[in-house]
Amino acid sequence: MDSAATEQPQSRNARRREQTRAKLIDAAKVLFARQGVERTRINEITESADVGFGSFYNHFESKEAIVDAVLSETAADHAMAIVSATGEVEDPAEVISVAHRHFVRLAIADPQLAALAVELVFSNQAIVDSLRPFAREDLKRAADAGRLDIPDLEVALHATGGALQGTIRGVLEGDLGVDADIAHAALVLRMLGLSPTEADEIARRPFPETSLGAGAGT
Amino acid sequence: MDSAATEQPQSRNARRREQTRAKLIDAAKVLFARQGVERTRINEITESADVGFGSFYNHFESKEAIVDAVLSETAADHAMAIVSATGEVEDPAEVISVAHRHFVRLAIADPQLAALAVELVFSNQAIVDSLRPFAREDLKRAADAGRLDIPDLEVALHATGGALQGTIRGVLEGDLGVDADIAHAALVLRMLGLSPTEADEIARRPFPETSLGAGAGT
Repeated sequence: MDSAATEQPQSRNARRREQTRAKLIDAAKVLFARQGVERTRINEITESADVGFGSFYNHFESKEAIVDAVLSETAADHAMAIVSATGEVEDPAEVISVAHRHFVRLAIADPQLAALAVELVFSNQAIVDSLRPFAREDLKRAADAGRLDIPDLEVALHATGGALQGTIRGVLEGDLGVDADIAHAALVLRMLGLSPTEADEIARRPFPETSLGAGAGT
Repeated sequence: MDSAATEQPQSRNARRREQTRAKLIDAAKVLFARQGVERTRINEITESADVGFGSFYNHFESKEAIVDAVLSETAADHAMAIVSATGEVEDPAEVISVAHRHFVRLAIADPQLAALAVELVFSNQAIVDSLRPFAREDLKRAADAGRLDIPDLEVALHATGGALQGTIRGVLEGDLGVDADIAHAALVLRMLGLSPTEADEIARRPFPETSLGAGAGT
């Protein structure tokens, strides 16, 4: 039974392999953020991770492959941070507001990561696919509860996701103010059927503690 | 006076130069649409335009340069087509609806061009910059007339532009139905402060004649 076999405790080798991969990803994250993807060479990643240059290729085919891995992990980390930060939030409209504000605030706080995300995440189908179920679930829950009015879930999913990308791009271009997260969340809630007044009220609610901290706007 | 000099009638040489450039762009448009940018070689463009291979480089530095020129021209053509098609439309909210529907319908009618646009236009700052003034003008006119409620024009501009890109991506992924243009336009009008009922009514109005023709949804 193959599936049972893969569920066995990992051998020491497999654990070590896992650890090396994680060290490479952590080192790459720091270097990409500090100096950009373009200027980061593979030998810098292996040196910073303190592993041999050759062993990089036991884990990744190319620099592109580790960029994808970094972005997938980062995206998943943020999705989970939002899920955990909104565990106590009862209003499904507010959950959506917090999720959108989280990513806009991330772009304001960490423009280099955001630039990487705009450039790469949205053109990377695997990563988009990995985040979309979270967004679909949030919209569906709010629509099923009668809290939001979403006549076409798929169009709403793509349009709200695109709106987020557009706003993040605006942050990166320096076009938007410090309250862009609130303005953006209010627009998204309007899209989902709330009146401008109610959308604005929800978008301005205190931002819950997430990995980004409470910060401005709370 | 330099500026007066450049306004003189063009010499025969300058006219011929202009014509050759236009022939190259037209040929490239057809080839890019038929077989994709990747698979189009420069010599195919010059052969199809019936100009010498070497003269390509009198006009463009590289294949990327002619791709940019094709997309800039295409974007400008569509912006002008929308302006002319909506000349008779009095409701500024409907103008915005038609503009968004135009681009979503374009993606449905011409997925290859749309794929090119999603891949290249939105990552090309020059082209984004060339289209944004049209969108800003439309939003500003509707807000100034009190027709729409747009508290933060810049966030709205980026978020609605991004929503359009997201919906076009959804069309390309095959996720959306044939009425995606109407569903999308309704979401955009909600974003801009209209109630779901009114947004839906405007989004469903007959689509005016543009270069895309009236087609479905009229």
